[in-house]
Amino acid sequence: MEQLRIAVREENRYEVIQNPQITSPRGFQVSGLHAGIKRKRKDMGLLFCQVPASAAAVYTTNRFQAPPLQVIKEGLEVEGRMQAMVVNSGKANACTGLQGLEDARTMRQEAAGYLAIPEHLIGVISTGVIGERLPMDRVKKGISRLVDSLGTEGHEDFCQSILTTDTCTKAEEVRLKVEGREVRVAGVAKGSGMIHPNMATMLAFINTDVAIESTVLQTLLRKVTDETFNMITVDGDCSTNDMVSVMASGLAGNTPLTEDHPDWKAFYQAFKHVAQGLAQKIARDGEGATRLVEVTVTGGETTEEARKAAKAVVGSNLVKTAIYGADPNWGRIVCALGYSGVLFHPETVEVYIGSVCAVQGGHPVPMDETAARQELEKDPVRIWIHLHQGASEATAWGCDLTYDYVRINASYRT
Amino acid sequence: MEQLRIAVREENRYEVIQNPQITSPRGFQVSGLHAGIKRKRKDMGLLFCQVPASAAAVYTTNRFQAPPLQVIKEGLEVEGRMQAMVVNSGKANACTGLQGLEDARTMRQEAAGYLAIPEHLIGVISTGVIGERLPMDRVKKGISRLVDSLGTEGHEDFCQSILTTDTCTKAEEVRLKVEGREVRVAGVAKGSGMIHPNMATMLAFINTDVAIESTVLQTLLRKVTDETFNMITVDGDCSTNDMVSVMASGLAGNTPLTEDHPDWKAFYQAFKHVAQGLAQKIARDGEGATRLVEVTVTGGETTEEARKAAKAVVGSNLVKTAIYGADPNWGRIVCALGYSGVLFHPETVEVYIGSVCAVQGGHPVPMDETAARQELEKDPVRIWIHLHQGASEATAWGCDLTYDYVRINASYRT
Repeated sequence: MEQLRIAVREENRYEVIQNPQITSPRGFQVSGLHAGIKRKRKDMGLLFCQVPASAAAVYTTNRFQAPPLQVIKEGLEVEGRMQAMVVNSGKANACTGLQGLEDARTMRQEAAGYLAIPEHLIGVISTGVIGERLPMDRVKKGISRLVDSLGTEGHEDFCQSILTTDTCTKAEEVRLKVEGREVRVAGVAKGSGMIHPNMATMLAFINTDVAIESTVLQTLLRKVTDETFNMITVDGDCSTNDMVSVMASGLAGNTPLTEDHPDWKAFYQAFKHVAQGLAQKIARDGEGATRLVEVTVTGGETTEEARKAAKAVVGSNLVKTAIYGADPNWGRIVCALGYSGVLFHPETVEVYIGSVCAVQGGHPVPMDETAARQELEKDPVRIWIHLHQGASEATAWGCDLTYDYVRINASYRT
Repeated sequence: MEQLRIAVREENRYEVIQNPQITSPRGFQVSGLHAGIKRKRKDMGLLFCQVPASAAAVYTTNRFQAPPLQVIKEGLEVEGRMQAMVVNSGKANACTGLQGLEDARTMRQEAAGYLAIPEHLIGVISTGVIGERLPMDRVKKGISRLVDSLGTEGHEDFCQSILTTDTCTKAEEVRLKVEGREVRVAGVAKGSGMIHPNMATMLAFINTDVAIESTVLQTLLRKVTDETFNMITVDGDCSTNDMVSVMASGLAGNTPLTEDHPDWKAFYQAFKHVAQGLAQKIARDGEGATRLVEVTVTGGETTEEARKAAKAVVGSNLVKTAIYGADPNWGRIVCALGYSGVLFHPETVEVYIGSVCAVQGGHPVPMDETAARQELEKDPVRIWIHLHQGASEATAWGCDLTYDYVRINASYRT
């Protein structure tokens, strides 16, 4: 598999950086610190670009969208640019109504003052407990200190400042050539799912120094999000604050990228690698999870159908518990496929657990149970399904369902 | 609450029978026994009516429909009548292809021979492990013995013969007057969800002696199923063999019921009571469950919207684990509502945990945590949500998500 990955990377003309830094792309500085929203751990971060960057963002579809998301949208509508993003963890500023909106606006105003840039160039986002107001005094002091401590060395501080119940920080970086110039794409993220009770939210921030118009960037982000962040599921719950944002400083100095640019495909693949890497790290760090699960569906009639099928299988509680127990239970996979809402002919379906064929022509085939069990003990666990309905395919990521998931989620307040 | 229930029953003009018997409606006999498909427990049952009964059935929407369902459909298409139903547990005869269809047909043929009635009047249904052939020799012998032991005393045997991993038998019965004549409706069911690994399936069988045309009965069953069996969720997985069937012997001798009949509403309510009671018993007996959870959504724009919202909340893993931990976590309820796909204005939402108001106008209100916790320790747990978007409402049932759910589902083969 590792060999395969390297081959893919070569074809994709990008190089994966082993020690990712969100400040690697030209023009970016960050900071992160403890402002007193949480008891002890870092809870505020700042991402800053020397120049107003082309920017894009995608948001949760949850009807209870947190106020900060509205503030980001308003800002991006002005000129599609962003120069700074203020993040806090500990409290989500969700279900906080007009007061919450005012608090988000105040956060932005404070940052604008200290950074001496227009308000519409600043995004704010929060993650943590739902329904409680932000402690605005602490937030304001935090912003002032964040601005003072901005630098190119703050990667780890920033990564930590956005976490809630994540067990680790999550970062990705790649580099590639665009018009012969070196370009970097780097991103950081925090955990998905409604990890802690009201600790919502998947957040991801991606930086690049490529030159690209914000409208093109928005289309790219939407497309890549559909293939990556929207293909992960921890517990099926989509939170009030989910967001992915991108800033492109343009300091690489290339001709602005469009789909017609000869290096478009290379950049697309590199950008997708970062998004997919972050998405996988989020899935693997799902609550109580012991293994990453990757379900690939090929032969779908449409991409949408293949995605639906892959997500149904990776999201099935019964498949997730079977994987935890390393039980090669193809019946549950087939059943999830059956209720996914995807149209297919059951008699054509093939299912592989890792490299072990379990179902062919819709029927179980004699399989080596020990080998299948070993495949389920690997990390990641790979499940492959061929629908034989068409040429579309999709991959979804998730994790196993364990005792710890129940423990974490049942005993939060006790 | 008990007082309220009695009041409702009086209004509904039916009486709930404390010791339900599937053979109470005129004309029905049953039997159940161990035929050797399972190691020890009863695994075959027979339901028989003295006369060809008006019949109706609804089936799983899973793409992998088990062969027996096709055999039932074919039979009902002939004249909408059924006189016998043969059930086995232990093996689901699903994902068994043409061989499975042949086996289901052979089951029907054998029963037709021993009962001396036409094949199209006989339904067959299986539940248990997916992907394995039925042991036809044992099944055939079983059918012969089932016919020999038919009687009005076999209720408990039949109830037991259809179980897989259910922890208890499930039955309901009501009586009411139609045109002044006593009419009975009685039903039995087995557990929902993909309870054991490949142990699929929710099955329910309802008998009544009312006179009613099969087309009217089919419409009634479809409508009531949408309000009851389709409103329960254990783990969100819809199996390959789910089925509900009804036989109406007509031996009460009333004018055949239609929607215009003066006693239609009374019968509808009585019939719904049986279906709802069985559905609740299935939800409460979900794998590892400790409590029944009832989520009622009022003020929906349409019934469909109210149902979607109620099912999203009752099906949320995070709500289910919070209930197991008796954690009055309104944030998870609101979040599930938010991603349900239902359109509503977050600022109008009210949420009650039992009698404790947790959210009003979309915002948390100060709540008595101890009282809320006590509400979550009750069985059933009741959650009430008002969307304030319209006049439609719906109720969904489920259970909590516990360590035992993970244990049962992760360790089946180990």
